[in-house]
Amino acid sequence: ADSAADTSAINASESAFFSSRTRPVLIDGVWRPAEVQGTFTACNPQTGAALPDPFPISAWADCEAALVAAKRAAADLRAVNPEKIADFLDAFASAIEAQAEKLCILAHTETALAIQPRLAAGELPRTTGQLRSAAHAARQGAWRRPVIDTKNNIRSQFAPIGPVCIFGPNNFPFAFNAVCGGDFAAAIAAGNPVIAKAHPLHPATSQALAELAHDCLVHTGLPRATVALMYATLPLDGLRLVSDPRIGASAFTGSRKAGLQLKAAADAAGKPIYLEMSSINPVVVLPGLLSHRRADIGREYVSSVLLGSGQFCTNPGLVLLLKNADSDAFIAEVSAALSAAPVGTLFSAGVRDELASAVKQLIDAGAALMTGGRIMPEARFAFENTLLVISGSQFLRHPDIFQREAFGNACLMVQADDIAQLLAICGMLEGNLTGTIYADDVDDVSLYDLVSDLLRPRVGRLLYNKMPTGVAVSPAMNHGGPFPASGHAHFTSVGIPAAIERFTRLECFDNVPRHRLPPALRDTAPAGYWQCVDGQWRQSLPNADSV
Amino acid sequence: ADSAADTSAINASESAFFSSRTRPVLIDGVWRPAEVQGTFTACNPQTGAALPDPFPISAWADCEAALVAAKRAAADLRAVNPEKIADFLDAFASAIEAQAEKLCILAHTETALAIQPRLAAGELPRTTGQLRSAAHAARQGAWRRPVIDTKNNIRSQFAPIGPVCIFGPNNFPFAFNAVCGGDFAAAIAAGNPVIAKAHPLHPATSQALAELAHDCLVHTGLPRATVALMYATLPLDGLRLVSDPRIGASAFTGSRKAGLQLKAAADAAGKPIYLEMSSINPVVVLPGLLSHRRADIGREYVSSVLLGSGQFCTNPGLVLLLKNADSDAFIAEVSAALSAAPVGTLFSAGVRDELASAVKQLIDAGAALMTGGRIMPEARFAFENTLLVISGSQFLRHPDIFQREAFGNACLMVQADDIAQLLAICGMLEGNLTGTIYADDVDDVSLYDLVSDLLRPRVGRLLYNKMPTGVAVSPAMNHGGPFPASGHAHFTSVGIPAAIERFTRLECFDNVPRHRLPPALRDTAPAGYWQCVDGQWRQSLPNADSV
Repeated sequence: ADSAADTSAINASESAFFSSRTRPVLIDGVWRPAEVQGTFTACNPQTGAALPDPFPISAWADCEAALVAAKRAAADLRAVNPEKIADFLDAFASAIEAQAEKLCILAHTETALAIQPRLAAGELPRTTGQLRSAAHAARQGAWRRPVIDTKNNIRSQFAPIGPVCIFGPNNFPFAFNAVCGGDFAAAIAAGNPVIAKAHPLHPATSQALAELAHDCLVHTGLPRATVALMYATLPLDGLRLVSDPRIGASAFTGSRKAGLQLKAAADAAGKPIYLEMSSINPVVVLPGLLSHRRADIGREYVSSVLLGSGQFCTNPGLVLLLKNADSDAFIAEVSAALSAAPVGTLFSAGVRDELASAVKQLIDAGAALMTGGRIMPEARFAFENTLLVISGSQFLRHPDIFQREAFGNACLMVQADDIAQLLAICGMLEGNLTGTIYADDVDDVSLYDLVSDLLRPRVGRLLYNKMPTGVAVSPAMNHGGPFPASGHAHFTSVGIPAAIERFTRLECFDNVPRHRLPPALRDTAPAGYWQCVDGQWRQSLPNADSV
Repeated sequence: ADSAADTSAINASESAFFSSRTRPVLIDGVWRPAEVQGTFTACNPQTGAALPDPFPISAWADCEAALVAAKRAAADLRAVNPEKIADFLDAFASAIEAQAEKLCILAHTETALAIQPRLAAGELPRTTGQLRSAAHAARQGAWRRPVIDTKNNIRSQFAPIGPVCIFGPNNFPFAFNAVCGGDFAAAIAAGNPVIAKAHPLHPATSQALAELAHDCLVHTGLPRATVALMYATLPLDGLRLVSDPRIGASAFTGSRKAGLQLKAAADAAGKPIYLEMSSINPVVVLPGLLSHRRADIGREYVSSVLLGSGQFCTNPGLVLLLKNADSDAFIAEVSAALSAAPVGTLFSAGVRDELASAVKQLIDAGAALMTGGRIMPEARFAFENTLLVISGSQFLRHPDIFQREAFGNACLMVQADDIAQLLAICGMLEGNLTGTIYADDVDDVSLYDLVSDLLRPRVGRLLYNKMPTGVAVSPAMNHGGPFPASGHAHFTSVGIPAAIERFTRLECFDNVPRHRLPPALRDTAPAGYWQCVDGQWRQSLPNADSV
């Protein structure tokens, strides 16, 4: 995902002003006029036309007010029964479903993503599923991982880390939205308030979602300042937010450039920040399987690489092949299919121009253009479906350039001269979210082992004979990976309860009497809680005494 | 723990040279002459005299060779049966026990820590206990936390992160030694090679321990490059090590200044680094209990604050009291007891001078000197047992100065005017490893809640009516805490298996056939392994098929 280019497209007015039409921000549990630094409008990517309503670019005063309120809410949330937090998450999921049609239309208008199947049948149910998983985790408490040493009376568990600042990306207006997506669900499930910085390419969608969140907070009786929303801040204020002493942690999904800036600021302040920054998701197609299933793999690949106009974190942007007649034919067929496929609409002029620039850089570095390569001469934001090819030697000469993420509907295929070169390329790969191997169970056995040994430590998720664009919301999912794909390879941003752990700190009680312990650390934990007692995992009975 | 001052005490020779007497380094599984940048000698703190043998300050060439060998060892270790890793850790523990007398004499000579009870009865058994816990964890595999989603065939687990560079502190020559301590045990248990940078105040102890480690590697058949040892490097080479692409992660225990420099370098390279940097471990004594148990608390405190001449990470250096007749008497009694107690020996002239400078800064800022305050005019390194007192208002005027760690046998007591001021002080505390509350179960009930709500989020471990200097090696222990006590409040450096997680990354397998999965992710895991399958923890039977 790439958001840096888009942020720079915001038109800050020269002097601060407030327009009566400017949409309000949600701060301290109240919808109110922003302290504005300027305004911006979103755009309909299908027409290139600006959408009517101006949204505020918040000044630091908004951030400051949000921090004060969030710090208070964090203390209040500590005293709230987790059941109530779960009720909020469930209610929010239901509220989103009740407004599904309106939300899909809004998101479609702002992003050009198809209502069917993408938004209505895919992303929206995924989002509500995440919220309900988080609700379940809040109830069941497994994310706390209570560890009890009865002999020494030492007890530890993960506890909420404090207010979480979330920067949402451009490419998932629901599932990764700062105000309802995976990071949001995880942070709230652990009992943390959220300061959401929506992506400025879909502010109306974000506002509508935050309205539902706010209504559900009021309805379930959680502290109203549990959810705050801003649409845009000045870049320096973003750096200030993630390093503020009142922040517990931050989460960011977006471009590597913006992510690294936020990381440097948060690191210097000793504040955890969880980043998903970029990934080209290499797919290695081994020769045995390619010879048997060339056409199928080509179809799967084209379908995966064009999903959402290629604007997926897990978009398979790099394909590694052995140079032979099969791979020549594969490239020709994929090229033809890309050429024949409809060209999707991109999120913004910024995304389109950034894609054009990345493709140009690849061509300048020597990549052969098989198809596409040009901006579509249309009002909508679009770029031809593009395929580039290089040799293995070319890759090895410029591994940095040829691993640059071209975010959108473009891909690069590498034909290695031989197995040794293919392995050398695998050994040069940066950290990625995913790595995929297509292999035949018989013909590619020994090569699979060599490739997977190189790929596995470089990726968060290793896939076998399956394209990486589906990210199942499963407790076993890892949507993360070695730097620079993410900021820390120990954590995942998808998958409950693991994703929740990012927003926790370890707390420990030594010799503290029973009645002064948090509920999950008592000998009799609330019903359904898992505890690891003297090395054994056990779950308290559904009807156990929870005092 | 403070190591920065000591490192600067090293005398680098002006030109590189090799003396036949200079001790060898352990690199690539071989004891060999270092590529020297200079040499240094350790010192007997009890006499102030230099010890005879010169040790090398390694040039970058040693680091480079260690990195190359460690990277290869990391790949080799992936294929090793965890049982073998466990055997190594067990054998190492036994080898240390077999050489206990020699090791304790060496450590005593280099650190002046008492052989009995500290080294022989305390630290050495703790160290071997840690190694055996780590062995158990390597066998049982709970640290991998395998999570299996059978429906989607997605499976994830923690995997070794790669070579781990460990910087040991000055204050635990066994239990935190880079070549046998807690970080070492945790890194090895996960299957990572270790590049140990011993603390230059106890190089002979470290060499003797590394010799045992090396022998045990050879004996158990692990890759010999699994353990490397250097005694000193140039500061810039330390920064280069923690940010090297071949490093998986680093661990550091020492001064805040050195820790922050390493953190900045590692963060910029996207490499995890786990730091334990400084802590003053506030103890809040509430008025009810103080009125009932003043003499007992004073005795417990004096004993804790003088342990190891105060050179403990968890030394209770700051005491918060309410100003009244009881606290006046408490201060007078503690002062008298400190004055009467024998003065321990400090690790080095650097530690002593740094302590003198910290005490001077506190006095300059207005602290009243109750006892001590001077360097002992002796050949050994010693500083008078020192107690300083300030008012609550003084603390609130200069919270930064009055939270400076005075590493050694000095402490600061704060008398707050009233409860509101006491709470205000608690709210200003930085991140600490521990926080302690002494409270009466009846008289201090409501105040306990107010204080613990403020203290708990600021410390890694909250203690009740118990001094913090004992750090039990328990699965429930948290030896960590909010920045700047540690680098990341999610992790602990003591407590198996949690401490192991620092040296892991999350790996995930999506649609990978059964026979290509790591053992812990198969439907039938090795005997005794815990797996979380579709949300339920289960342990495979002791005799289950491990294929």
